[in-house]
Amino acid sequence: MAAAAPPPPPTPTPTPPTTLPETGPVGNPIFARIRIANPSDVRPLHKLMYQLAVFERLPHLFSATESSLSSNLFNTPPFQSFTVFLLEVSPTPFPDAPVGAHPPITHVINLDLPIADPESQEFGSGGDAVVAGFVLFFPNYSTFLGKPGFYIEDLYVRDCYRRKGFGKMLLSAVAAQAVKMGYGRVEWCVLDWNVNAIKFYEEMGAQVLQEWRICRLTGDALQAYGN
Amino acid sequence: MAAAAPPPPPTPTPTPPTTLPETGPVGNPIFARIRIANPSDVRPLHKLMYQLAVFERLPHLFSATESSLSSNLFNTPPFQSFTVFLLEVSPTPFPDAPVGAHPPITHVINLDLPIADPESQEFGSGGDAVVAGFVLFFPNYSTFLGKPGFYIEDLYVRDCYRRKGFGKMLLSAVAAQAVKMGYGRVEWCVLDWNVNAIKFYEEMGAQVLQEWRICRLTGDALQAYGN
Repeated sequence: MAAAAPPPPPTPTPTPPTTLPETGPVGNPIFARIRIANPSDVRPLHKLMYQLAVFERLPHLFSATESSLSSNLFNTPPFQSFTVFLLEVSPTPFPDAPVGAHPPITHVINLDLPIADPESQEFGSGGDAVVAGFVLFFPNYSTFLGKPGFYIEDLYVRDCYRRKGFGKMLLSAVAAQAVKMGYGRVEWCVLDWNVNAIKFYEEMGAQVLQEWRICRLTGDALQAYGN
Repeated sequence: MAAAAPPPPPTPTPTPPTTLPETGPVGNPIFARIRIANPSDVRPLHKLMYQLAVFERLPHLFSATESSLSSNLFNTPPFQSFTVFLLEVSPTPFPDAPVGAHPPITHVINLDLPIADPESQEFGSGGDAVVAGFVLFFPNYSTFLGKPGFYIEDLYVRDCYRRKGFGKMLLSAVAAQAVKMGYGRVEWCVLDWNVNAIKFYEEMGAQVLQEWRICRLTGDALQAYGN
């Protein structure tokens, strides 16, 4: 993917995640879990990436395979290089995670109506849970700050789960991890015509840099430098 | 630094590097060597980064120190994370490098006139050699391709060494390394008003992506996600 292209939430203020009230859930609770992806997640991850390519109207440029993702996405400890946070959702609570270095982040959202997921079989993730989205990011470096940051390559939430705050959860999870590691920036890219996404990002505190353009050397033009 | 901002070479076709003819150098030869930087290079590297900030008219945003660079730039083997190629030049040939995994790249350029370097003392690099520039890059990832690439954060050549093909040498060195590793892309950013740089990059085979904008979360807006 050229760069992160999250689906724009058209509502001005996405529903903020709320914690479960002590008296129990009200309305239609949906339980969300963000956890670090591992090699066993490659199948749904590849499907999500392809859906993003379709969303960007560029599926003809999509050549990633489950095998290529498996071979180069999970070769370093989390956050040191390419890292994927997977978003899973469920109508019932997730079991307590075993204590570990990177525990999952959980949220509960109370919706007015339950979500009908036409792809629940395809994205089934054990029990009632389904995979609903992901964010792929990796360290970058600012010589101005003299410190690393994170660059978000992709942020994607499946169609039926959009406009509910899940995109914000994924982006916030990366930002929180950056702060935790003492990093100086989180950066990503957006298409200039995607005004809803731009509005959403600005509401999250991001600046949109208008003067910079991405340059890309790829395909035969890149291969020519191999001699 | 926001992104790579190499000084634009205003000549349409930079002088290509030539190999030393067997009859010996003609004109005013300048020997160039590109090698992987190490912690002992932090002092000139920090000066070059500051010069780049001045070139971009943003020195007030420059807060990197030699110490911050030392602590986070050299913690992984070359190419796995942040990597710096240092450009050194000398009027006399460089000694043969010891055989190693990543031997330096050397070139000779024959100039019409010798270069007067007003900062030769400050950037002295042993013998007749001086540090003349650098490129800082690190792996990125394309989910379209399902493979890594390199992102160039900074590419800089000191003023008196510009327009001689050194920027092209540095960029080519990164591209060649990407091909060697089977990577799919090399990307960087350019300011949209820097038409000479854009022309130069296009001549090197790069596409300039017009629709994408960089989003940045930093400072207090980023810190707010730490809670």
